[in-house]
Amino acid sequence: MNLTKKIGWIGTGVMGKSMCKHLLNKGYEISIFNRTADKASELIEMGAKFLKPIEIAQTCDYVFLMLGYPRDVEEIVIGENGVLKNMKKGSYLIDHTTSSPDLAVKIYSKAKELEINSYDAPVSGGDIGAREARLVVMVGGDEENFANVEDIMKTYSSKINIMGSAGKGQHTKMSNQIIIASTMIGVVEGMLYAQKANLDVDKVIQLLGGGAAGSFSLNVYGPRILKRDFEPGFYVEHFLKDLEICLTESEKMGLKLSGLELAYKLYYSMIEMGLGKKGTQALMLALEKINKENS
Amino acid sequence: MNLTKKIGWIGTGVMGKSMCKHLLNKGYEISIFNRTADKASELIEMGAKFLKPIEIAQTCDYVFLMLGYPRDVEEIVIGENGVLKNMKKGSYLIDHTTSSPDLAVKIYSKAKELEINSYDAPVSGGDIGAREARLVVMVGGDEENFANVEDIMKTYSSKINIMGSAGKGQHTKMSNQIIIASTMIGVVEGMLYAQKANLDVDKVIQLLGGGAAGSFSLNVYGPRILKRDFEPGFYVEHFLKDLEICLTESEKMGLKLSGLELAYKLYYSMIEMGLGKKGTQALMLALEKINKENS
Repeated sequence: MNLTKKIGWIGTGVMGKSMCKHLLNKGYEISIFNRTADKASELIEMGAKFLKPIEIAQTCDYVFLMLGYPRDVEEIVIGENGVLKNMKKGSYLIDHTTSSPDLAVKIYSKAKELEINSYDAPVSGGDIGAREARLVVMVGGDEENFANVEDIMKTYSSKINIMGSAGKGQHTKMSNQIIIASTMIGVVEGMLYAQKANLDVDKVIQLLGGGAAGSFSLNVYGPRILKRDFEPGFYVEHFLKDLEICLTESEKMGLKLSGLELAYKLYYSMIEMGLGKKGTQALMLALEKINKENS
Repeated sequence: MNLTKKIGWIGTGVMGKSMCKHLLNKGYEISIFNRTADKASELIEMGAKFLKPIEIAQTCDYVFLMLGYPRDVEEIVIGENGVLKNMKKGSYLIDHTTSSPDLAVKIYSKAKELEINSYDAPVSGGDIGAREARLVVMVGGDEENFANVEDIMKTYSSKINIMGSAGKGQHTKMSNQIIIASTMIGVVEGMLYAQKANLDVDKVIQLLGGGAAGSFSLNVYGPRILKRDFEPGFYVEHFLKDLEICLTESEKMGLKLSGLELAYKLYYSMIEMGLGKKGTQALMLALEKINKENS
């Protein structure tokens, strides 16, 4: 393993921060940037250098992004002061943000012209997966040269797969979000039912988690919901953004997915309820509210 | 373990048959009944005795049921020629059928009057759980005397929990079905999206199964859907019956569960499409059809 690789990381929120910690602990030298500088302080204490995006672009061989929205990616990468045109030939741009497949293709093409290797590489596994270095990474881009990137990603991931050409990483992540969206509805509705039926909900989720109703959502978020812990592993507003991309892409493909539509409607109502900065498991609060209004 | 316990088993379909095989392999003597006698032949060859329900009631200490619908349970247990009034004092009636919580309470009360121990004990884990003796059993009824029953159940189960008084086993199962209903929608929609986006769907489900989208439904039914294997582990028409009970119970509690309503609508449409005898994973066929009609 070549620990002298110069790594830059833009976006050190919940996910990015945990991922950077693993890199630092492994011995990598990294330069970081975050719009809200506060969120970078722990990493700086651990040895990360704080640089502007343009400085990261100029000095690093590998530039990783973990941002919030496609518009952030677009601005940081190909905006007026974007990183791409400041990056070195032969360097690597890896976008871990869950973003639009079209934007991934656009960035890939522009990067190709500049002889820069571009990968869309959204992750799954949530805050817990990031903390425990067992994220799942779904990659779109060229197989050629990817080994160099994979080597770095392994620091915080348990599974890394190239899913196809540029954009295919994002499409895979959309499948992931579509699955999670309805799964979370099921988990929350099942728990609400159990609550209303005066069952011991803790016992219920323990028991059902081992059977055909078992899922990551039930096993990880079920206990949090039970403790009324609605703090974000993954922000409602970010999930809503993902579901928006899913809907846009589905429409383009002529797909009507009613579960996805329902999830979008429910998560959208959460923004109106002021729950945008809560974690996705706060869907429970929304369903409780809706049911209170109905009764 | 007391293998001289006289066990009767009514209902040897997909699930009941596998469960009885485990009992026979363990060395239990069992008497069985099934409306369609064909489905009992393999068990008879293995040593089970075929008796009428009334004979089972008269001769067995433990009478297990694994039937299709609440109406079947009602008829077999408290109908004109029902087993309950023919059972011995101190004997046990265990209903593994997924059925209505109210009916479970009704049977429990009548059994109590006759000094018979009654348990509602629906299971989760599907055909695969039954075959591999790792079903999850959720029990409603009295803790007292339950150890005798648990001993037998262990033969085909990995987890057995008393969830509370009569009916609470069924309520727990309803939570289970509510969770599975939306989870399955998520899995099928995610796979359909992946298909349309020209991803390698096999690779997608392998990868996502290990992350936050992972679930029993994705990991067990995903590969079956991929192989276009829509044979029943669990019949669509039985699942629809479960969802009907879920809806009825939710309404009684004043709960509005939109995911459950959507699942009911989709599975109901499958009956109209002639898919009632397929497995629940055939939801894929329904969504493909709906999307074809839309395009």
